[in-house]
Amino acid sequence: MPVQRIAVIGGVASGTAAAAQAARTDPSAEVVLFEQGPHISYGACEIPYYISDAVDSAEKLVQFDAKRFLKEKRVVARTGHTVLAIHPARNRLTVKPPAGAQLEERFDKFILATGATADTLDIDGASAPNVFTIRTLEGAVDLKNWLAGHRINHAVIIGGGYIGVEISDSLMARGIRATTLDPSGVLHRYVSPALQPVVASHFTARGLQIRRERAVRFEHDAVGDVNAVLTDAGERIGCQLVIVAIGISPNSCLAKDAGLRVTPNGCVDVDEHMRSSAPNVWACGDCVMTKRVVDGAWIYLPLSPAAFRTGHVAGENAARQGRGAPARFPGVVGASAVRALGLEVAHVGLSLAEARDAGIDAFAEKVEGFSRVSVDPGSRRLYVELVVDRARGRLIGGTLVGEDGAALRANILVPLIWKGWTVDAVRDLDLIYNPPIAPAIDPLLTAANRAARNLGRASL
Amino acid sequence: MPVQRIAVIGGVASGTAAAAQAARTDPSAEVVLFEQGPHISYGACEIPYYISDAVDSAEKLVQFDAKRFLKEKRVVARTGHTVLAIHPARNRLTVKPPAGAQLEERFDKFILATGATADTLDIDGASAPNVFTIRTLEGAVDLKNWLAGHRINHAVIIGGGYIGVEISDSLMARGIRATTLDPSGVLHRYVSPALQPVVASHFTARGLQIRRERAVRFEHDAVGDVNAVLTDAGERIGCQLVIVAIGISPNSCLAKDAGLRVTPNGCVDVDEHMRSSAPNVWACGDCVMTKRVVDGAWIYLPLSPAAFRTGHVAGENAARQGRGAPARFPGVVGASAVRALGLEVAHVGLSLAEARDAGIDAFAEKVEGFSRVSVDPGSRRLYVELVVDRARGRLIGGTLVGEDGAALRANILVPLIWKGWTVDAVRDLDLIYNPPIAPAIDPLLTAANRAARNLGRASL
Repeated sequence: MPVQRIAVIGGVASGTAAAAQAARTDPSAEVVLFEQGPHISYGACEIPYYISDAVDSAEKLVQFDAKRFLKEKRVVARTGHTVLAIHPARNRLTVKPPAGAQLEERFDKFILATGATADTLDIDGASAPNVFTIRTLEGAVDLKNWLAGHRINHAVIIGGGYIGVEISDSLMARGIRATTLDPSGVLHRYVSPALQPVVASHFTARGLQIRRERAVRFEHDAVGDVNAVLTDAGERIGCQLVIVAIGISPNSCLAKDAGLRVTPNGCVDVDEHMRSSAPNVWACGDCVMTKRVVDGAWIYLPLSPAAFRTGHVAGENAARQGRGAPARFPGVVGASAVRALGLEVAHVGLSLAEARDAGIDAFAEKVEGFSRVSVDPGSRRLYVELVVDRARGRLIGGTLVGEDGAALRANILVPLIWKGWTVDAVRDLDLIYNPPIAPAIDPLLTAANRAARNLGRASL
Repeated sequence: MPVQRIAVIGGVASGTAAAAQAARTDPSAEVVLFEQGPHISYGACEIPYYISDAVDSAEKLVQFDAKRFLKEKRVVARTGHTVLAIHPARNRLTVKPPAGAQLEERFDKFILATGATADTLDIDGASAPNVFTIRTLEGAVDLKNWLAGHRINHAVIIGGGYIGVEISDSLMARGIRATTLDPSGVLHRYVSPALQPVVASHFTARGLQIRRERAVRFEHDAVGDVNAVLTDAGERIGCQLVIVAIGISPNSCLAKDAGLRVTPNGCVDVDEHMRSSAPNVWACGDCVMTKRVVDGAWIYLPLSPAAFRTGHVAGENAARQGRGAPARFPGVVGASAVRALGLEVAHVGLSLAEARDAGIDAFAEKVEGFSRVSVDPGSRRLYVELVVDRARGRLIGGTLVGEDGAALRANILVPLIWKGWTVDAVRDLDLIYNPPIAPAIDPLLTAANRAARNLGRASL
């Protein structure tokens, strides 16, 4: 069999995982990774800590450079290379190298790990020099260089999701006042209306200004910088920096142009084996949807664990040449967390709103407890909200909020939701009890017990 | 139906849980709890923090006093009452009240929550005034009063289990030098030989002396206090205080004397409904064995979660008068943890040695990772060892050791082991990734992946 050539397009989390797994699966294959930016294999989730100066250099966010990637993973990484088109039917791609003219190259197989792009505001002046989005390492370097050259008193962060909240924290750590604008409140995708006040009051107490307003207009100074954000409430918020963190959209232009099937929300359409509608193209990471194991729905949840795992599956299947059963991505429960301004907010599975959208009759059970035995000096308030499928009594989601032990505790929900544990069974779990670690009856168990009682089960 | 009278004997964790659940199950029942000590419902696991002065008063360890227990749970608690005998066949018990002569009282049902007693050394002088065990709140008050009246430079702690290590930490927090004696090394029940050096060197670096020796003789001063411990290695360790923490034994004398069936290791023999061999006697807590869900073996694992849950089941079944199906205690995975001298050690399920004893062909997979993304200033080394059933590829145990996030992470293993997840499936879990919380690929997943590779599965 001739040596197969595999092209991977995109070199952050999923692309590098796919390329490495392809090279591992078929050690004789020639695997080439194309990345348009200057870096591959960096921790995009670490960008806020680079902005805050907790991490002092951008290099520390890079796990593999091209040289080490070749040596350790046997993948040729071409940075600064922009893939302009793929032609799966005739096994070619068109690429623009950093210097010289664009050219065509032959590949047997293609893996699209093109990721996503930060959404921008449809407001005049959204591309002013002091308006930034947070997505790529080179963008982060630009922002940090810009911060070094400017005196900033006040920043407006548009969007109160994970990234908006993390960047607010990062800027505040640099001594910059921050105002977050989000008409639905901070972290509203993860935190139910019942828990919103807990989160908002914590952040506010730490000095973050939170406004449930929408940015509608920018005002500019003489050099073109935005110097005020006007909101739908008629407020005018003076600032020297604007961060736009309102979401991301999948990059699927290459797929569309190649005639591949694309989902209504713009993702490359793949099956559980990460295969696209073309037989020699796979896709993975933030440009594909993932299956939610709770109900089998395909959702767009561009998070790191799925990026790595879909990359592994795409890489393995692209390389395996039909021997044995193809690798399968089983889907995700959907688990995420943030720690910002001293507070951990973690969410796993479905929110009550998502359950409703999925046609599941669900209810939420909220309890307020403590992270440890209350006499322990490190004990902090811990809020647990579980989402339960009423008909089957099964746990389908949960949110934990607190200053201590919220996020790691939330991880327990991943296998529970994955296997559809009933709340009755959850309360039987012998979770760890030790005063400096957890109270005698963990708030998670208390919440499960209350939910079981709500379903008419005997109380404990 | 006449009002039933239910006697609960023992008033710490399991007894109070049983009594409260009995009163909840049959609100018309008269539930009387007998406790020989002065306190009910206290957190025995919090005693080390009371000894260290992290908790300043013994009262803070008490959750309910008798008055509040009556008001909120409708249970009459009689402290200072020693039950001398139960007579299930003729519905009587013999009790010695704090004042006056012993008397007989009629009860329809009995719940034995008699707990366990700390083992003592079979060495001459083991009952000297400066030799203490750690078990009851009144014993802890005695020790603390004794500490207040004595100048202590050096304490010898005999036994390197959880309690020995916690008390070593507590005494060191009071400025006392501590030496732990254990011929098998510290925490050897939970920490495999492969991880022993990690734990021992951490504790040693924090100033704890660890000797893998056995105490064989005491030397005494003029007033009868122990002033030196002699070991089987011929060492003589001078000290002013000795703590004996070598284990506990179930209290089953009342059961034996009443002719109830008792297990070879001295526990009250019960079924999954916590019923003893007599139809009107139930037992729960540290005086019974529990079923290990991994293999169905009955084991003696006197830990708090089982104490509460077996108490609930015993209380409910004693009170329910035959309506519906009896409550069932499904067993435990067995999860425990300690945080001492800045280190967390957590263990869930079976150790390799326990697997071998259970006739399971198992192997251990150890990985050394980090608790968070390595650039995070709070990131610490994290050691994970998983125990895997080779034939079925299932996770049956695990140990986590580290200064950050080891214990709460170990909780994830509880549902995984409970439901017999294969290591292949474990590596699919989308556990939370966020730099200040966990690395991109959690060390638990890395360990599962390595174990899967060991079983001949494709690498990730």
